Amino acid sequence: MCTGSEGHTGAVPEPAAGQAADRGEPAPADDAALVKDLVLANHILFNHGVVDAFGHVSIRHDKAVDRFLLARNLAPAFVTAEDILEFDLDGNPLAAGGRKVYLERFIHGEIYRARPDVMAVVHSHAPALVPFGAVPSEPLKPIWHMSGFLGEGVPVFEIRDAAGPGSDLLIRSGDLGAALAACLGSSSIVLMRGHGATIAGSSLKQAVFRAVYTQINAELQLQAKLLGAATFLNAREAAATSISVGGQIDRAWDMWARQAGRDNP
Amino acid sequence: MCTGSEGHTGAVPEPAAGQAADRGEPAPADDAALVKDLVLANHILFNHGVVDAFGHVSIRHDKAVDRFLLARNLAPAFVTAEDILEFDLDGNPLAAGGRKVYLERFIHGEIYRARPDVMAVVHSHAPALVPFGAVPSEPLKPIWHMSGFLGEGVPVFEIRDAAGPGSDLLIRSGDLGAALAACLGSSSIVLMRGHGATIAGSSLKQAVFRAVYTQINAELQLQAKLLGAATFLNAREAAATSISVGGQIDRAWDMWARQAGRDNP
Amino acid sequence: MCTGSEGHTGAVPEPAAGQAADRGEPAPADDAALVKDLVLANHILFNHGVVDAFGHVSIRHDKAVDRFLLARNLAPAFVTAEDILEFDLDGNPLAAGGRKVYLERFIHGEIYRARPDVMAVVHSHAPALVPFGAVPSEPLKPIWHMSGFLGEGVPVFEIRDAAGPGSDLLIRSGDLGAALAACLGSSSIVLMRGHGATIAGSSLKQAVFRAVYTQINAELQLQAKLLGAATFLNAREAAATSISVGGQIDRAWDMWARQAGRDNP
Amino acid sequence: MCTGSEGHTGAVPEPAAGQAADRGEPAPADDAALVKDLVLANHILFNHGVVDAFGHVSIRHDKAVDRFLLARNLAPAFVTAEDILEFDLDGNPLAAGGRKVYLERFIHGEIYRARPDVMAVVHSHAPALVPFGAVPSEPLKPIWHMSGFLGEGVPVFEIRDAAGPGSDLLIRSGDLGAALAACLGSSSIVLMRGHGATIAGSSLKQAVFRAVYTQINAELQLQAKLLGAATFLNAREAAATSISVGGQIDRAWDMWARQAGRDNP
Repeated sequence: MCTGSEGHTGAVPEPAAGQAADRGEPAPADDAALVKDLVLANHILFNHGVVDAFGHVSIRHDKAVDRFLLARNLAPAFVTAEDILEFDLDGNPLAAGGRKVYLERFIHGEIYRARPDVMAVVHSHAPALVPFGAVPSEPLKPIWHMSGFLGEGVPVFEIRDAAGPGSDLLIRSGDLGAALAACLGSSSIVLMRGHGATIAGSSLKQAVFRAVYTQINAELQLQAKLLGAATFLNAREAAATSISVGGQIDRAWDMWARQAGRDNP
Repeated sequence: MCTGSEGHTGAVPEPAAGQAADRGEPAPADDAALVKDLVLANHILFNHGVVDAFGHVSIRHDKAVDRFLLARNLAPAFVTAEDILEFDLDGNPLAAGGRKVYLERFIHGEIYRARPDVMAVVHSHAPALVPFGAVPSEPLKPIWHMSGFLGEGVPVFEIRDAAGPGSDLLIRSGDLGAALAACLGSSSIVLMRGHGATIAGSSLKQAVFRAVYTQINAELQLQAKLLGAATFLNAREAAATSISVGGQIDRAWDMWARQAGRDNP
Repeated sequence: MCTGSEGHTGAVPEPAAGQAADRGEPAPADDAALVKDLVLANHILFNHGVVDAFGHVSIRHDKAVDRFLLARNLAPAFVTAEDILEFDLDGNPLAAGGRKVYLERFIHGEIYRARPDVMAVVHSHAPALVPFGAVPSEPLKPIWHMSGFLGEGVPVFEIRDAAGPGSDLLIRSGDLGAALAACLGSSSIVLMRGHGATIAGSSLKQAVFRAVYTQINAELQLQAKLLGAATFLNAREAAATSISVGGQIDRAWDMWARQAGRDNP
Repeated sequence: MCTGSEGHTGAVPEPAAGQAADRGEPAPADDAALVKDLVLANHILFNHGVVDAFGHVSIRHDKAVDRFLLARNLAPAFVTAEDILEFDLDGNPLAAGGRKVYLERFIHGEIYRARPDVMAVVHSHAPALVPFGAVPSEPLKPIWHMSGFLGEGVPVFEIRDAAGPGSDLLIRSGDLGAALAACLGSSSIVLMRGHGATIAGSSLKQAVFRAVYTQINAELQLQAKLLGAATFLNAREAAATSISVGGQIDRAWDMWARQAGRDNP
């Protein structure tokens, strides 16, 4: 099922007092600034090749831990605030109004369910990650300080163990989403063999940052392998750089957001 | 002649009742929306590096199975509706009006003749495919779910077997086109050693989608090989992903079409 | 001196009747259309990465075989008609007017001297060619039909044999230019170890076309090598494709010229 | 600590007569043209991928050898003249006015302290350099004439020897900056394992030029290795090309500056 996973560590979060426990009721209005950042995140991820016409990004609702925000089924480059829908953790939209939803929304819901610490999820189709997902003998590891969050190695989800040998490789159910979340464990990223990757972050900006730099790390690790035996970050360096570089995420987000037109009139 | 082909499966289609059986007569007016999409396809393929100044894309005429539409001899980036010509399956233009035609129009005609199911053909010069066409020991296979349509491997057309050891590698006759179509067999793509590739689709959008994602698959397969032994999609996964991803083609087409200026005033 | 060269084949051309035999006199006014194309060639080569701030392109004067046209010392991207200077085959400018000239103009003069058939010369700094110039055990050969003009292999000029073991690798004299031309022999391209390459064409459009496609061939040959043993074009295929593809050069030139702004008001 | 270093060669420069020896006093007003070039350098380095949201460039103050100019903590792409701050060699800003400074400013100060000949420093995050920093068995060496300044090989700074086995890989103190400067020695560049590189130049334009071409050299050296055993520049060629190409730096700077909008109204 999973190469390199450290096991499942989360639990179903208790809804906070004052929130809608009834699955059918939408949560209180989400923060317009958060929705705006989610829209930007879609565009930033597209600009960096983390997603193309496929792939998506979500955030946990800031007022309801059992809800998340995700665009309707649309190429990320075109997402606007009007395209953002609210979902429960089972992947049911609260008010889709006939709009089509992403088939793989279960990736997001199940990770939010398993990981109370996760506030944003990116489902990446970054090409550079696909070879690492396909070659289990070469675990993706942090080769530079920008990717310390990769820790001691990245788990790889082999869907054959959860969906059998003839699936379409898509996370098309809550069960498959739960299997993926279990493989993710307490890591920040899980590679998905023959598919792409999923990145989890404690904030939207962190998830986007990690999605971009995981892809670059993969390119550099491949190049290093062609040169010879590489020195990777050890566990302490990985942890230390993850903290230090984590303190600089805003500088990157600010640049990417401006490039994506955030400040245009 | 052909590495990895599954054999010839098509037959000459019977012209439908009410169509022009006389080779000299143009078919009823084609659908303006189809011509518009064919023009867009030219630009999309150029934007994605599937074609540069060379390469082309055609569609079978929607009102005459023994006709196809293809631009005059022109770089795809500049094709407009006025450049679209109608051809019979032997590659004769119906009303060229002195305009030059693509030397390799036989690629299109012979595939439409051999494959009644094919409605669009892309002749690709995508650089990433050339190494795979040149190294027969490394068959192009689907490494991710976006390329399941590559099936269990892609045939490679070696023109020396059809045209002798000293040709210019071009499909410059119906005979060579038929040889290529035979090598394509029932596959969706055939690599052409020392040349490029040809992609066949049941619709224009599918052919374009497949042309783009075959090129990406080639890049990823090369990278994976540099890492080690890769896990490819098995036959069932290839078939299942081909269907599922096939249902999402419109999302990609819509984005690519907008990027190509479809919605500009 | 030279790996893979076929020897020197040219001779000093006799000036045509009616032309200025006196080195000091400028030739009759050059064709404005040719100068315009030479300016365009500079921009096209920059757009394709054949040159960056360094590298240059020249044409033999259309009215004086012992003269050639080359820009003053300037990044090719900025060359305009006013920057084009006339030189004799020894590399002396006829009317520099104090403007600085390219240090390596001797590349052009000596090739025009040695090769009466050559009408244009491109000195390329295309990165993809540098590895092939540096690794003599891997001769650059045509892997696809767009590069048949590479013939049976490309000579490599090792400047140590002409300039000793401690030069700055630049063709800074007529003697070094002559050594380079001798290595070029009757080929269309010579790689220059530790430097780049020089491409010779029977017309400007052909030289530019060859400069662009040689670079692409190098990229594809490297990728093919990573896959396994590649099938290259044999001598007859190389010759045949060179002729056929040569007949299509205008289609590429036209696109590149339009992209470079030729038709802008 | 350092692979391939030639040892520490600098000394603390004596402040010139008439300059502010008191650390607390700002130096006389810097040259507005120099500040303008420093701003341009930030943008040029971003355009060439030497820096992204991270990385920085400084110049030694032209009127005070114990001061240097460096932007406040900001993505280089957005640096303007108002963002340039003055620092002493210990990394203390003279008039930060509450603005945040780069954590790794010690890289600059300590190199200026150790190397009286150095007038500009670039801290690069160029991806192509990271694999070489991570694989000590493959020293970065000049493969073409544009990178002769790489000399006989580039030192690699292994921070574990200076900061222990669990650091965050950042040069966050004067001691670490001094260790890096010692590893740089008299070279023009030092690779930083798991991090990037630092380039030192005798002028800003030279430092920028070297930062750009070091990155290209790394890409070409990797490609050459994939082809086979490469011929590198020997020591004399490296020295000779460094001088000759050094005389052409302005041509590159002028193009890059124009591309970065220097001449826009």
